[in-house]
Amino acid sequence: MRRIALLLEWDGRGFMGWQRQAHGPSVQAALETAVREVTGETVTCQAAGRTDAGVHATAMVAHVDLEHPIPPFRLSEALNARLRAARAAVAVLRAADAPPGFHARFSCTGRTYAYRIVMRRAPLTLEAGRAWRVPRLLDVGAMREGALQLIGRHDFTTFRSVHCQATSPVRTLDRLDIAANGERLIILASARSFLHHQVRSMVGALVLVGLGRWTPARVGEALARRDRAALVLNAPAEGLYFIGATYAEPVEGFYTSTAMAASTL
Amino acid sequence: MRRIALLLEWDGRGFMGWQRQAHGPSVQAALETAVREVTGETVTCQAAGRTDAGVHATAMVAHVDLEHPIPPFRLSEALNARLRAARAAVAVLRAADAPPGFHARFSCTGRTYAYRIVMRRAPLTLEAGRAWRVPRLLDVGAMREGALQLIGRHDFTTFRSVHCQATSPVRTLDRLDIAANGERLIILASARSFLHHQVRSMVGALVLVGLGRWTPARVGEALARRDRAALVLNAPAEGLYFIGATYAEPVEGFYTSTAMAASTL
Repeated sequence: MRRIALLLEWDGRGFMGWQRQAHGPSVQAALETAVREVTGETVTCQAAGRTDAGVHATAMVAHVDLEHPIPPFRLSEALNARLRAARAAVAVLRAADAPPGFHARFSCTGRTYAYRIVMRRAPLTLEAGRAWRVPRLLDVGAMREGALQLIGRHDFTTFRSVHCQATSPVRTLDRLDIAANGERLIILASARSFLHHQVRSMVGALVLVGLGRWTPARVGEALARRDRAALVLNAPAEGLYFIGATYAEPVEGFYTSTAMAASTL
Repeated sequence: MRRIALLLEWDGRGFMGWQRQAHGPSVQAALETAVREVTGETVTCQAAGRTDAGVHATAMVAHVDLEHPIPPFRLSEALNARLRAARAAVAVLRAADAPPGFHARFSCTGRTYAYRIVMRRAPLTLEAGRAWRVPRLLDVGAMREGALQLIGRHDFTTFRSVHCQATSPVRTLDRLDIAANGERLIILASARSFLHHQVRSMVGALVLVGLGRWTPARVGEALARRDRAALVLNAPAEGLYFIGATYAEPVEGFYTSTAMAASTL
């Protein structure tokens, strides 16, 4: 048995998320079906992160165990052909033999998400379903001040879905940066791991700050309350992108920086 | 009668182009229908450039003449509501009273297009229909060398569709820049005006250079031949964006630089 690592991109609009669902299309099911068609093997694909319905990925890392001796490059080409034929908006960007002991989920030591906001009145056309449109200019300075209060190791209960299954609500947020380019904002969030809905909850709070409805200090106060009820707004899934997974031992040929993955946005 | 200038964005995938067609949806028809629904007036919209089927726009300038006294901002909001209801992927980014003597097409003194290329093997997902995928890394240095030979005032017959209706094939190309960001290229082309298919023809030639199938010098040789048969490859419409129109007297509140319009790409 050999383990192959896969670098994946997908458009989240047509999927109920990464994870296989009884009813409705998932990225995992699309990929597992393609693997079966190519190799004849029934596999379970593991990914660095599970994403919600509508959430996109530019550089998700996954793995699959195979008996079949197909070389990684030929596997990626064959999977892409099958995914295309199935009209599944998933692409295998790279495939490579996984390093010894590699596990896409359990070996992952860092995850980065990007969240895209477009500040304007007009509906989105080219970016419909790919960004959150906020109809006012946000105060980016205030948002950055609010973001600073979330950096570090905290109990993130306030910023956690009631359906979150993690055993502990404590996470260490390494990065929460806001890049502004005209009407467009990209918020980058990095951590070893995130709670369910954590990024969307944090973005929701920052947008309240940007709108002037929350002071920057209120972000820290909401965090300290450790109470989901302290939160008002969950940012919609359509603005969220999984853009990077890091490993102590990187997979050869996979993106090592999130800059490349972010250039798709 | 008052003249209102409109700044427009659209996703070209669902349209046969800007111009009203007997059969099939056009941006012009979608907009004229929305204007009629809002004001009760039957109008003809004029735009700075006519685009082909599948070509996108991030900052097209158009105008419309109205009797109705609706303020420009309210007009833009009402048009967007109608366009949205019609599921037309067109948005009015700005509306403003046109300066005296303004004509979206005839007053336009400069047009800028962007062409997006993604260099990779894997099919596009998030960017499907919005970029040209070229399955090899292109030699950007050679492409830039080729591009230099097109700058300036030339007879562009080689780079002109056989259906082009312009009286003269002579145009002055002010800019043909290639920006590289990892696997992504953006080619920016600016001129007072372009011939039909000129940008796509020039991009096609540059890609042949980037692939090593043409020397950079051959671009200049093809130009000098003034013969459409000297050209091999027309870049597909899906990578092309109209991103800027300039006027001696700019419309108040419209984008004055293409940097902002390019940030949508």
